[in-house]
This record gives sequence, C-alpha cells and structure tokens, in this order.
Amino acid sequence: MPDTKQQAPKIAVVMAGGRGTRFWPRSRSSRPKQFLSIVGEGTLLHQTVARLDGHFRPEHIFVVTTAELAEETRRMLPEIPAANVIVEPEGRNTAPCLALALVEIERRVPGGVMVVLSADHWIGDPDLFIEDVETAVKHAAWERELVVFGIRPTYPETGYGYIEAEGQGPVLRVKAFREKPPMDQAIQYLASGRHFWNAGLFVWTLQDFRAELTRHAPAVLAPLDAWVAAGADPESLAEAYGQLPEVAIDVALMEKAEGVAVVPTRFRWSDVGSWPAALEFHEPDADGNVVKGEAILLETRDSAFFGGKRLIAASGVSDLIVVDDEDALLICHRDKAQSVKKIVERLKAEGREDLL
Amino acid sequence: MPDTKQQAPKIAVVMAGGRGTRFWPRSRSSRPKQFLSIVGEGTLLHQTVARLDGHFRPEHIFVVTTAELAEETRRMLPEIPAANVIVEPEGRNTAPCLALALVEIERRVPGGVMVVLSADHWIGDPDLFIEDVETAVKHAAWERELVVFGIRPTYPETGYGYIEAEGQGPVLRVKAFREKPPMDQAIQYLASGRHFWNAGLFVWTLQDFRAELTRHAPAVLAPLDAWVAAGADPESLAEAYGQLPEVAIDVALMEKAEGVAVVPTRFRWSDVGSWPAALEFHEPDADGNVVKGEAILLETRDSAFFGGKRLIAASGVSDLIVVDDEDALLICHRDKAQSVKKIVERLKAEGREDLL
Repeated sequence: MPDTKQQAPKIAVVMAGGRGTRFWPRSRSSRPKQFLSIVGEGTLLHQTVARLDGHFRPEHIFVVTTAELAEETRRMLPEIPAANVIVEPEGRNTAPCLALALVEIERRVPGGVMVVLSADHWIGDPDLFIEDVETAVKHAAWERELVVFGIRPTYPETGYGYIEAEGQGPVLRVKAFREKPPMDQAIQYLASGRHFWNAGLFVWTLQDFRAELTRHAPAVLAPLDAWVAAGADPESLAEAYGQLPEVAIDVALMEKAEGVAVVPTRFRWSDVGSWPAALEFHEPDADGNVVKGEAILLETRDSAFFGGKRLIAASGVSDLIVVDDEDALLICHRDKAQSVKKIVERLKAEGREDLL
Repeated sequence: MPDTKQQAPKIAVVMAGGRGTRFWPRSRSSRPKQFLSIVGEGTLLHQTVARLDGHFRPEHIFVVTTAELAEETRRMLPEIPAANVIVEPEGRNTAPCLALALVEIERRVPGGVMVVLSADHWIGDPDLFIEDVETAVKHAAWERELVVFGIRPTYPETGYGYIEAEGQGPVLRVKAFREKPPMDQAIQYLASGRHFWNAGLFVWTLQDFRAELTRHAPAVLAPLDAWVAAGADPESLAEAYGQLPEVAIDVALMEKAEGVAVVPTRFRWSDVGSWPAALEFHEPDADGNVVKGEAILLETRDSAFFGGKRLIAASGVSDLIVVDDEDALLICHRDKAQSVKKIVERLKAEGREDLL
C-alpha cells in the first residue's frame, strides 16, 4: 500500500457553524458550544484544531463557520491562516456547508483527502483518534470510497442516527444508515455489535466527494460551481448559497451513496449535548459535587456549579445544575436539563434577544 | 388626665445601628437589614420613620446609628434634620446606644417622652401602632413609669425573650422578664395569655430614664455625663463611649427596674429575622413561588427568587430560596436558611471582607 500522506494532501474540514442553545446561559447565538470551555482545556473549537497538530499542516486545516462567528473563530485559531476560515453566508445545514468547503478547497489544495470533523465534539485518546483518521484517510485515498466514522455505542441512545455495518477488520462496509431508533430498537443495536453511532464525521477524496455529490445531490453543488465559474466573487456568494437546499449531508448523500465504508472508532467520543453530558467530564468531589469557580457548599450533594465571576453559596440542596452567567442564572434539577431548550424558546417568544 | 402631648414633647428614638448578616448576600456590613427593601415599600428604616409621620414632629425624631452607616442613614431620611442622626462611635449594644441618645436629646428637647423603636422591624396596622404608642406615652408621662411593649405571641418562638404580665386593661404590670425559653416552655407561654414577646420597644420620660439608669446602671451613664460636662466635644466621644459596658438595655436596666408597665400591642409585628420570615410578607403565586425581579420558572414549586439585575431561569426545583446579588449568589433549601450565618462565618474566616 503506498503512503497516501505523500500521494494526497490530507485536509481537515472542521464544521464550526453550530448555534446550539443547550448550554444556555453559557452558550448564546454569538457564543455557541464550540466557543465554550466546558470540557477539557480550552474551547472545544480550539481542542478540535489542536488535536490535529503535528498531523495536518496548518494551511491544510479549514474551518467552516457563519459570518456572525467568523471573526471570533479566526481570533481563537491563530495557528491556521485567516483565509482558511471559510465563511458561510448563512447556516444551511451540513450538505451546503461541505459543498462550499469542497469548491473552496479544491481550488487551493487540489487532489486532497478531506477529513470532516465537528468543532463541538469532545474526543478522548488523541493518539487513537489520529490512528483512526489515518486508517480512514488511507482507505478513502486508496479504495476511493466515501468513509464514515462509526462510534461504538456505550448505551442505548435514542437521539442519534445509527450505522449498520457488515464485514470484518478495521474498515467495515455500511449496510444501512438507520434513523434515530425507539428505545427497544436502540437496545438491540447496542447488543448487536454491528451498529454504530453516526457522529457526522467523514473522510473522502475531494474528487470522490465531487463525483458523489454530482450523482446524488447535484442541487447542492451546481449553484456553487456556477459561482466559481463566474469568478467566485465573495459579494455574490450569498446569492448562490441561498439557492442550495437546506439539507444534511447524511440525507443528501450518505444514505444514497453505494459502497460506503465505515471505520469503527477506538477513541472515546462525546457530542457534549447537554449540561449533564458535560458533567461527566468532571470528577465530582466526595459529596458528588462539581464546582467550576468559587463556591461555599454546606450540606450540598450531587450538584454542579458552573460559576461566573461571583461567589456561589449553597446550603441544603441536591441534584442541581447551577450555571451563573453575567446576565442570566440557570438553576435546574439535573434530570430536567432538557428544559433549557424550553427556557430558550420562552426567551425567544418574549423577544429577549439580549439573552439569546 | 391632662393632654400629655402638650405637656411633654414626644420623641422617637430609632435604633438603627444593626449589622445583621442573616440576609446575606443582600445584607452586608455596609448594607444591613434596615437599609433593605425586602418587606413592604421602601427600606425598613424608611418605613420606620414614615410610620411616625403626622404624629411626631420631624425634629423630634432621632436615629442612632454607627459612624459607618451614618451618611447613608441621613441620605435615606431627608425628612428629619441631619443633626438628628446621632452617631455611635462604635456599636456597644443597646444600653450605651440609648444612654447616648438620652444625653444628646435631653440637651435638645428637655422634658420629653422617649419612644424607643427599632429600624429593622416590620409593623402592620400603622394606625393601631400609633394608638398603642399613644397609650404608652400617656402612661409613661402620667404614671412616671418605664413602659415596655409586649408583642402577643402567635407561635411558640424560642428565640425571643418574654415578658410575663399581670393585671388588666390596656396597660399591664411586668411580673418578670423571662429568658429565651425551651420549646415546651414557649408552648406554655403561648397558651398562658400572660406572656408577651419582648421586642425591645420602650417608652419613658427622659427624666425617668436618667433616674433609673443612675440607679441601676450608673456605669452606662457616668462617662457620658462626664463627656457632656467637659463640653461634649465630638472628637472625644469615642473615648467616653469606649468606657461604657457593652450590654443590652434589658439586662442593664429593665430586668432590675421595679414597677415596669407593659402595653400589649395590637399591631402586627415581625423582626424579619431571616429569609423565610421575609417570605411570609410576599403572596406566593399558584405554585407557591415568590419572585422579586425577572424569572422564568418551569416545574418549580414553593421557592423564592430574590433577583438582582439578571434573569433567573429555574426548572424542576422546589423549596429553594435563591438570592441573586451583584457579587454573590445564595441557593438555599428553605429549611436551611439559618445556614446563612455559617456561610458568613466561613467568609469571615477566609478573609473575604469584600463579600461581608
């Protein structure tokens, strides 16, 4: 097997346009999850790029984000060229995002292999991560197949899509993409050993990605190709981009493509989807409490305090998640963290854009 | 019975040197309970003085406080002369406080009847309050006795001293002052109909107060008399004041004096001694919640939110008291409000004067 690292430039495309609100009040539209330091050292965005250090050339690391977040994204990533932050005129889901990355990158790094990552995931075991990436890159470059990473489930999650795999070895074949399952189905998936979480992490050559998009999702690509043919004027990108269907890459391409490979990952992974999920990355003290910031706790158990600039004093409470921010305070039972979404909806309905 | 209002000027002495910490984080050493607007309209201090409006001449209303609080006290009370805010060089309990008031006031309003009030109590029924005050003033001026107000107990409180009374009518005789009782005793007191809470509210003529202090507590008065005799130089007050025994007026005088009268009060009263006590003055909503400030509450019951400048969002919690202040946040089970004291002690031990 030839060394693909010499044959094809290895490119990382970090999708960083997320505007999640599940970490409200810490996350806001201008301060989404990838900008937060809630897990690990530094922001999730910076960790995502730092993880590539020594394995990807800085000029081959691209980040796609929205106009609103571009400046802060560049500020957080001094290690990559400013021009490598590709700006979506608006968020239109992942298929347009990756198609834009394609037309931008194939002009700059022709012949590359593209590793699609997400800016707001946590990944443990960075060495295993790089090894798994290398496995996928080699497969994509050598076998010329689209590759998806399959995360081995650790519990019967009903909120993710699954990949059903077949075959043996470090690279399997995708038998089917499965939608978010009901619990009984998720339990079967967990037991089967053949089902993996689809975390939206992909590897493919630029050439194959173009060919497959052209075959299965030409509407996602054509307006961008026309824009490039007309001179790729940044001023007119918004018009072209607005014509793209707002659709996920899984739906637009992956579920339609044939011969997709899956690399079962060995690294630990989390999409850090909620405050309780974030909590799992913090070692609780003897009373089960997690404290970020300054707190005085009396008779307090199994609670989490994400402090801000102020002292938090708690007494006689348990099972709380407290998030203290400059202009808003969240006090939530730890089993009710999903209600953060409702709070955000209420704020939207009340026109409290200042708090969103 | 002659009209005492014409015979003797009626003087109010509001003790306002309290430095309580039970309302931390709202109360601080520089912002004690009397400066807070936690019950009723405006601060407790201002309510105390406003209650006298129309019944006491402004120049006959005096407020005794400490040097630290004097400026803010004057600012809050533009309706009384600045010189009527008498400044204790330091807090030395109520006997020195009232002795200082005596020597200051007898020079300015000789022959007056002094009504001793507290700046940080809540009083309902202001008309009944004034009527009860008039009853006590007339008795003190006409019968020339020390008078104490007796608050009719509404539950078996073990944290207050009690007055055991005898006799009939609107003015009774004090049989004995009783110390804070154990619960079984407090229950007997409540049932007896002859026991009243001692709220530290008194009425006496300046002349009788001087005579009784001279008889029972000369050490509280002599250094101040010497200071007056030497010219009452404000610069040397601290030296004289520092010689006074640090003692409560109940111990120094009331428990020793003979022939003390008690006026059972008809007005509702509270010393607003804790966050739960303050809560009783707020009408809860249908879910049992009290909200001051801005809050979004989801599945939240029997909780109180004393907000600051920030939005509070709560979900799935109950029985909490939340107090949001500029530099500190309290989250407390409502049965654990006494732990505020422990929190303050901890802050003291840690040298966090900025939060005290």
